[in-house]
Amino acid sequence: MENKIILSEKDMPQRWYNVLPDLPKPLPPVMNPGTRKPIEPGDLAPIFPMALIHQEMSSEKWIEIPDPVSDIYRLYRPTPLRRARNLEKAIGTKARIYYKDESVSPPGSHKPNTAIPQVYYNKMEGVKRISTETGAGQWGSALAFGCKMFGVECTIYMVKISYEQKPYRRLLAQTWGATMYPSPSTKTNYGLKVLKDDPVCPGSLGIAISEAVEDAVSREDTKYSLGSVLNHVLLHQTVVGLETKKQLEMIGEKPDVLIGCVGGGSNFAGLILPFVPDKIRGDKVRFLGVEPKACPTLTKGLYKYDFGDTACTTPLFKMFTLGHGFIPPGIHAGGLRYHGAAPIICHLLNMKMMEARSYYQKECFQSAVLFAQNEGFLPAPETSHAIRAAIEEAKDAPEGKVIVYNHSGHGHFDLASYQAYFDGKLEDFDYPEAKIRQALSELPEIE
Amino acid sequence: MENKIILSEKDMPQRWYNVLPDLPKPLPPVMNPGTRKPIEPGDLAPIFPMALIHQEMSSEKWIEIPDPVSDIYRLYRPTPLRRARNLEKAIGTKARIYYKDESVSPPGSHKPNTAIPQVYYNKMEGVKRISTETGAGQWGSALAFGCKMFGVECTIYMVKISYEQKPYRRLLAQTWGATMYPSPSTKTNYGLKVLKDDPVCPGSLGIAISEAVEDAVSREDTKYSLGSVLNHVLLHQTVVGLETKKQLEMIGEKPDVLIGCVGGGSNFAGLILPFVPDKIRGDKVRFLGVEPKACPTLTKGLYKYDFGDTACTTPLFKMFTLGHGFIPPGIHAGGLRYHGAAPIICHLLNMKMMEARSYYQKECFQSAVLFAQNEGFLPAPETSHAIRAAIEEAKDAPEGKVIVYNHSGHGHFDLASYQAYFDGKLEDFDYPEAKIRQALSELPEIE
Repeated sequence: MENKIILSEKDMPQRWYNVLPDLPKPLPPVMNPGTRKPIEPGDLAPIFPMALIHQEMSSEKWIEIPDPVSDIYRLYRPTPLRRARNLEKAIGTKARIYYKDESVSPPGSHKPNTAIPQVYYNKMEGVKRISTETGAGQWGSALAFGCKMFGVECTIYMVKISYEQKPYRRLLAQTWGATMYPSPSTKTNYGLKVLKDDPVCPGSLGIAISEAVEDAVSREDTKYSLGSVLNHVLLHQTVVGLETKKQLEMIGEKPDVLIGCVGGGSNFAGLILPFVPDKIRGDKVRFLGVEPKACPTLTKGLYKYDFGDTACTTPLFKMFTLGHGFIPPGIHAGGLRYHGAAPIICHLLNMKMMEARSYYQKECFQSAVLFAQNEGFLPAPETSHAIRAAIEEAKDAPEGKVIVYNHSGHGHFDLASYQAYFDGKLEDFDYPEAKIRQALSELPEIE
Repeated sequence: MENKIILSEKDMPQRWYNVLPDLPKPLPPVMNPGTRKPIEPGDLAPIFPMALIHQEMSSEKWIEIPDPVSDIYRLYRPTPLRRARNLEKAIGTKARIYYKDESVSPPGSHKPNTAIPQVYYNKMEGVKRISTETGAGQWGSALAFGCKMFGVECTIYMVKISYEQKPYRRLLAQTWGATMYPSPSTKTNYGLKVLKDDPVCPGSLGIAISEAVEDAVSREDTKYSLGSVLNHVLLHQTVVGLETKKQLEMIGEKPDVLIGCVGGGSNFAGLILPFVPDKIRGDKVRFLGVEPKACPTLTKGLYKYDFGDTACTTPLFKMFTLGHGFIPPGIHAGGLRYHGAAPIICHLLNMKMMEARSYYQKECFQSAVLFAQNEGFLPAPETSHAIRAAIEEAKDAPEGKVIVYNHSGHGHFDLASYQAYFDGKLEDFDYPEAKIRQALSELPEIE
């Protein structure tokens, strides 16, 4: 029995799977923040190309992957499905643990699965330049990679404190030719305003989003790009689950539980969405989203309409949210610090079609080290949440239980966080109840 | 036509290829530094297990890979052979460029190919603890990984300046449970002596080797391990070339030139040695070793007996050498700063069965960036030397020329070097003629 289940390139999915038409109840509409009415395609045209806007609202079950996108996917796809045999032995489980290894892409995560098609559709509509924001740099580096592959300019507003303290993903993005600005920057009116009020402001993802959007709407040649949350992002990520499905079929396995960490929700969605029709047809497969206790969106949030950003400039999404004003503690899984989550994921949770669970960061690092010491590969702090849950699912599991998780990224640029863990400098944060209650109290009332 | 040529695990080589019996002239013997007579197996017994000593001198053409070694190899092997189509387009070549991607291993280089079997054979002979030295940390992290896989303790003397300035590979090794000491350390007599003379000594690979060897010979439970140069190391690395051969056969290609960077020579040897019998039988395939102009062992060294280390404690090897007293300038390809090279490689060069070429580091980084901007993956500075040569071989190449190089490692832990390149802070060093002449004048006279 092989350790790696490998698809050939010709078995790579040729279509993305769109879950929208298969949902038992329709997804609540996205609301225009001005009119508080459902959003129209034209509302999004200043910042996104029409092809992506159509995908965002599409009722087609399958959407063709364009050949030029497949050509770039083929640099690293299909990705391996690996059996974590050594880990199974180490924890003494009767379960079989598989992981879909999305860390093998050039930027080291699942993010290019959507960066590549987003850049492609922009280019097809004549866009010369794309702007985005990034926190620790996972999304920024993936978009920089995608832009370089199609010869589109890339401008990234990176949260200033990360820009200064976490130079490696920034350097990776710069190697792929991106222009990086520490945010708040002097390049936008919003950045200038923030700097005027606080010249030493360390920045935040909310500020960086506002700068990137302003950059896009103020220039004819530029559009904006988002790396998670939106329906079209989740659509592109379904290559992950579609491949996993084929790989499991190749070895005659049926998954009992599919696991992913959830920040915005795109890696988790990419894995599970192609299995939703099976679940609707009666398969017993469970979907388990895992988040940090410090930012417990799915386990402690309310299912309400909220803004996607802290500055209240985006449309309103129906989602589990901790409130757009909630600023989570500075945990090392920077990609899991979002106040909301993808509307599709939240809808599934609300319909009880999936489960959610939260962990402290120290127990996640402990699981990451156990994984690295047995399987070799060093996981990203975000991914370690999925690993923790996989291990927990494996303990006392019945013979032959099949556990599959999305290994969303490697930790090669997160070794400073491992050092903090080894040095005993990591803090665990309990559910920040008062701050969340305060942030939730400020939500707009829309039903 | 696929981008990646993938072998299944069942097609992984089951035997390493030993070139020694196939060499047209026998390899000059290794000399005992005391007696200046050919070394006996017993001379090496204090530092290496007998199985490795036998492999070092074996006349068997094929050596079985033990199952427990294959089991660990399978975590990342077989590795992909990738076609660099985008790079081909970018440089407008008629050649086809393939690269054997050894960067996919957990430590990110080819080094575990020998770390794993070395630890295995030590464990089989009851060794509880292995000591070694490391410079920038490539070898140290690979040995730490190998030791963790078999539950053997690992102690690494890491050159102090790298220990302090390049913490990431050190942290990787620590994640795999290794004990790391900055060298010169207070753990050995030699380290104490160095520190007494110079309390702020930044260390050197020569000092670290001496400490690691002293550690091994002074303890019953401990042996020493070396990551390059020796015959048994090159033997283990032949999995690289054996897989490459099968992969090229799968797609009906015959290589015109095989390329690798050369520090000690193990990644280059791993790729080319399995093709030596074809060349002896008359195949036109060329072997091209690439080194930095700052440390031009193969292109400017003398073919003489020299010590493997700076402290003159190792046996004497017949090799191209710049003199064991030569300290190369501080280039960013830390793995290519060795004064000598593997005796087998030097023997092939001396018999004119291979070629050697040298480059400046800036032109290598330029090629690395060109590669990353087209193929996505970020190469190690060492690997960039092979990429530079592959590009040069591709320019003005006739239709259908097949170029294959060993992509020995990724650059995820070398981004500070990329930053220096982008910031215009890299220096090119010309052949340091006077220093080399001085070092060569101090060589022992043995024929």
